[in-house]
Amino acid sequence: PCNAACFPRVRRVAIFGGTHGNEMSGITLVNMWMKNGAEVQRNGVLTKPFITNPGAVEKCTRYIDTDLNRAFTPENLSTPSGDGLPYEVQRAKEINQLFGPKGSPDAYDVIFDLHNTTSNMGSTLILESSTDHFNLQMVHYIKKATAPESCAVLLNEHPQLRYATTRSVSKHPVGLEVGPQPQGVLRSNIFESMRMIVKHALDFIELFNSGVEFPTCTVEAFRVHERVDYPRDTNGNITAMVHPRLQDCDWEPLNPGDPMFQTFDGWSIPYAGDGPVYPAFINEAAYYEKQQAFVATRRETLAAAAIRLASE
Amino acid sequence: PCNAACFPRVRRVAIFGGTHGNEMSGITLVNMWMKNGAEVQRNGVLTKPFITNPGAVEKCTRYIDTDLNRAFTPENLSTPSGDGLPYEVQRAKEINQLFGPKGSPDAYDVIFDLHNTTSNMGSTLILESSTDHFNLQMVHYIKKATAPESCAVLLNEHPQLRYATTRSVSKHPVGLEVGPQPQGVLRSNIFESMRMIVKHALDFIELFNSGVEFPTCTVEAFRVHERVDYPRDTNGNITAMVHPRLQDCDWEPLNPGDPMFQTFDGWSIPYAGDGPVYPAFINEAAYYEKQQAFVATRRETLAAAAIRLASE
Ligand SMILES: [Zn+2]
Ligand SMILES: [Zn+2]
Repeated sequence: PCNAACFPRVRRVAIFGGTHGNEMSGITLVNMWMKNGAEVQRNGVLTKPFITNPGAVEKCTRYIDTDLNRAFTPENLSTPSGDGLPYEVQRAKEINQLFGPKGSPDAYDVIFDLHNTTSNMGSTLILESSTDHFNLQMVHYIKKATAPESCAVLLNEHPQLRYATTRSVSKHPVGLEVGPQPQGVLRSNIFESMRMIVKHALDFIELFNSGVEFPTCTVEAFRVHERVDYPRDTNGNITAMVHPRLQDCDWEPLNPGDPMFQTFDGWSIPYAGDGPVYPAFINEAAYYEKQQAFVATRRETLAAAAIRLASE
Repeated sequence: PCNAACFPRVRRVAIFGGTHGNEMSGITLVNMWMKNGAEVQRNGVLTKPFITNPGAVEKCTRYIDTDLNRAFTPENLSTPSGDGLPYEVQRAKEINQLFGPKGSPDAYDVIFDLHNTTSNMGSTLILESSTDHFNLQMVHYIKKATAPESCAVLLNEHPQLRYATTRSVSKHPVGLEVGPQPQGVLRSNIFESMRMIVKHALDFIELFNSGVEFPTCTVEAFRVHERVDYPRDTNGNITAMVHPRLQDCDWEPLNPGDPMFQTFDGWSIPYAGDGPVYPAFINEAAYYEKQQAFVATRRETLAAAAIRLASE
């Protein structure tokens, strides 16, 4: 009987790179660990570094046919394989077979999916559930371990805005987003930040497996609230830029009346919401096509239950 | 008879954007000026804003088949048109017809070609000749007008390393490179810097046309000296990153023994040249495929002759 929430031993962990083929830190780390995995091995755990979208990596482009990190829908995963499928849909089905099936007991325990952003977000852990206490404890551990360097937690649990991620085939999906880094560029500082967070995450798993109990705690998180698009004309062309006072200010409060966009004529467009939001993914290159200038989040304190290893 | 070097009146100026389809400042400015050109009109001058690679702009990619900014070779420009040509070669032939022919008296007087870089180069004017006194006077004027903000002059006159640029169809080709800005991203600060430099350039042309004589002067420039590639393994994969002490330090001296690269194991690789160089295009995204981590330049003081309008 557990006083804490009990979770089974973590036996299989995957580290995904190249879900977007032009995000170079994760691609480089995963390729490095595939050659020599000593750094990511932990007692009793199978750690599998894996390039998820090799076609896009080869071309150094985000995707070939469609965004792999939106492709893990029930429809895609249940559709019969065949030559006519978009590359990433076919790939999603293969990844689901290798690391899932999604939602099943056979799925990998944990998947870390490594991403870069052009936004000035620093290191960010992305969770999909506010009630996955294993993941809440893990991000709490990582945040403490990286301090005083900050590591934000982004919670994408929004009923309409959440999406079917590559890592969602696992029981405990964790996205890691580190920036700013341009697409197609490898920066040593971003590379090292990402590498260190993966190290802390694996250390947590090893501690958990060893029987350490993690007491209740709280986690400061930013919950996805809404997407904000650029101002556009009737042809869909943008008519304003992110305002210089908002640019690079990810995670800082944006209050009603604060400048948000600047038109090409030099006019400011203020934020007109009804309270402070905390923007993230400000001016992310990949989100122009998704009609998103930034994502507005709200701060929230998440409660993590105590956890420990279930008796075996 | 001229005491100064005499040049004919500048009658036709083109402003090119989208030579690389993911460099958003020039694309946005040119699209804006095509809708409303008041800002770039000057007395007695035809100013033509023009998107050079619309196919690549549409896809937000550097190019479709081949780099347009390397395509203006005599071979390409003299090859017969036809359906089998790479998109950018066909496009180069069309641009040469519209704004050249390259090397002919019918060519446009001045072409400004607007580029962005992911490197921390600030604003940079790129010249192809150290003896084009019109251009030397123009960049001298622009440097003074933008001060105290710096505007570097990069001289690519190297017999092997120079390349056949889009702007080279004009009599006085000027490249403008502003960064840092990720590919596919429009930053307001970079947009405004580029806009201001084009304004100063057109003001210079108007002054010149009005009969103002520009006295002899000198221009501090950085001459392209050599390309430096990333360390790579036998498969061509990079094995080290730009060192954090070199990253973002464009135009600062790199001395023999200074750290240049950092291997994934954390080892430093020092610069082993025989004197200081001034790196530019450090960690530029588009240059990974060109096997170039940065371009090493040497400082040089160029002498500009006095110039004025030839009597008509
Ligand atoms: Zn990504
Ligand atoms: Zn360019």
